[in-house]
Amino acid sequence: MDLKVIQPGALNRPEPQTPIFPKVGIVGLGLIGGSIAIAARQLWPASLVIGVDNKDVLETAMRLHAIDVAADDPYVLAEADLVILAAPVRQNIELLAALDENVTQPAVITDVGSTKRAIVDAARELPPRFTFIGGHPLGGAAKGGLENARPDLFTGRPWLLTPTRDNGEAIEKLTAFVKALGADPRVVDVATHDRLLAFLSHLPQLTASALMHVVGNAVGAQGLGLSGKGLADTTRLASSPPEIWRDIAATNADEIGPALDELIRVLQDLRRDLPQGDKLADVFTDAADWRRTLKP
Amino acid sequence: MDLKVIQPGALNRPEPQTPIFPKVGIVGLGLIGGSIAIAARQLWPASLVIGVDNKDVLETAMRLHAIDVAADDPYVLAEADLVILAAPVRQNIELLAALDENVTQPAVITDVGSTKRAIVDAARELPPRFTFIGGHPLGGAAKGGLENARPDLFTGRPWLLTPTRDNGEAIEKLTAFVKALGADPRVVDVATHDRLLAFLSHLPQLTASALMHVVGNAVGAQGLGLSGKGLADTTRLASSPPEIWRDIAATNADEIGPALDELIRVLQDLRRDLPQGDKLADVFTDAADWRRTLKP
Repeated sequence: MDLKVIQPGALNRPEPQTPIFPKVGIVGLGLIGGSIAIAARQLWPASLVIGVDNKDVLETAMRLHAIDVAADDPYVLAEADLVILAAPVRQNIELLAALDENVTQPAVITDVGSTKRAIVDAARELPPRFTFIGGHPLGGAAKGGLENARPDLFTGRPWLLTPTRDNGEAIEKLTAFVKALGADPRVVDVATHDRLLAFLSHLPQLTASALMHVVGNAVGAQGLGLSGKGLADTTRLASSPPEIWRDIAATNADEIGPALDELIRVLQDLRRDLPQGDKLADVFTDAADWRRTLKP
Repeated sequence: MDLKVIQPGALNRPEPQTPIFPKVGIVGLGLIGGSIAIAARQLWPASLVIGVDNKDVLETAMRLHAIDVAADDPYVLAEADLVILAAPVRQNIELLAALDENVTQPAVITDVGSTKRAIVDAARELPPRFTFIGGHPLGGAAKGGLENARPDLFTGRPWLLTPTRDNGEAIEKLTAFVKALGADPRVVDVATHDRLLAFLSHLPQLTASALMHVVGNAVGAQGLGLSGKGLADTTRLASSPPEIWRDIAATNADEIGPALDELIRVLQDLRRDLPQGDKLADVFTDAADWRRTLKP
């Protein structure tokens, strides 16, 4: 009988593939950037994953085998053929301006930020050797940071892409890259992205944080000791890192504003209607219908 | 060797105990009433669990072996020594008025409603053979109804009790009953209860329903298809049954109103501050601190 020696874990490891981008530079190794790095190293052992962040984060990244090359200066991106900006939105916009002096080769540039109009506008100033395609992997987790990064973070989740001009083969290569990470790439219009995300993500985030702030200060630690799964679920997003959300709010204020106005209007209606409950029954019934269409 | 024959599941079954209340009447066999019924039958096989609800629910209750006696008329409560009102709050208040003609013996009366002032006020009219002690088991689940009832629903969860006068041994017996169900009984003042719950439960519920209503109508089914865990968590409570919440809102409007005002005020602050993000960073940081004190 012919016995094959199988290394532990080998069955679950994907077959090594020819890299779509031989040199992948990732600036910002948080939950998203870190997860992309780990996944890319597993998928394409022949590719080079270059990580840029501060020294503490880089140390963790090397310890987790998330990257091949670590530097706290973007000059290491010189030969990258894909650069992924994975810092908070306004830092990504500043990083764009520094690409010309650091990346010497033609390269595809993308980002993973939660708003798209501001960075897409800024990317119009890039020299023609760069092709910028905005990106936004949906999903994530309430707990950010490199220590929560994992290669399957994007599995089955949409990854929105916002190409804005004729990108030649760049969009095809980026789409293949995103698919290889397990995500479901979808091309959307930049303005549609920002409006949609204002409702799907930014409004729930602001609501969860405002609610936790109000409830915590009203009842204190002792009162919170009596709270249950309902409050915990509704406020889970309130754990999100403030620094990311400051940038999102600033770069999508004109879409988040009207979404907040609409929520405030409905809350004011409910407040007026508390003793009768007619409007409340309407809103609750409609909300329960929508909620049934979401995953549990 | 001496072999004992152990029936499947017998090891997990609690030892039969002497019933604290030999005849337990439960009016309203939803998630809470149904879970109490199932737990009581398992704990005290010698006690009689009498269920009152409409015929459809009673049929399900009999099929689930949740009750011993089923009737759609409260006359079956004649000999009950504990009556638990587990319908929506305003129905419980109406049921109180009918107890005098139906329950002929001295009895302890309690309820499981989410507001306490209204029913405690109404209970002052009860004849002296009845001892009313308001009750409120915290916890529950987003999915209501008898089909989701389970005997361990109360395990480790607080069960608030609001005695209002000298109750003799009634409070001791009810406390023992609640403890036997696995809950953690705690005596609280009626007004404190309603204020605390306005923030811990009623405000999150209204917020979750308002948010789901606004987001669903803004982005539609196709947009919701792109939503993730964040929106799902924040709106999980929106599945709650509207009929229960209409009664809660009506009987706690004066406490929920100011809580809603406070949330609206914070949301308005955030809306004004979106481009700067200073207030936003404050609220987010404070909220993240409070959120860390809750269970994940």
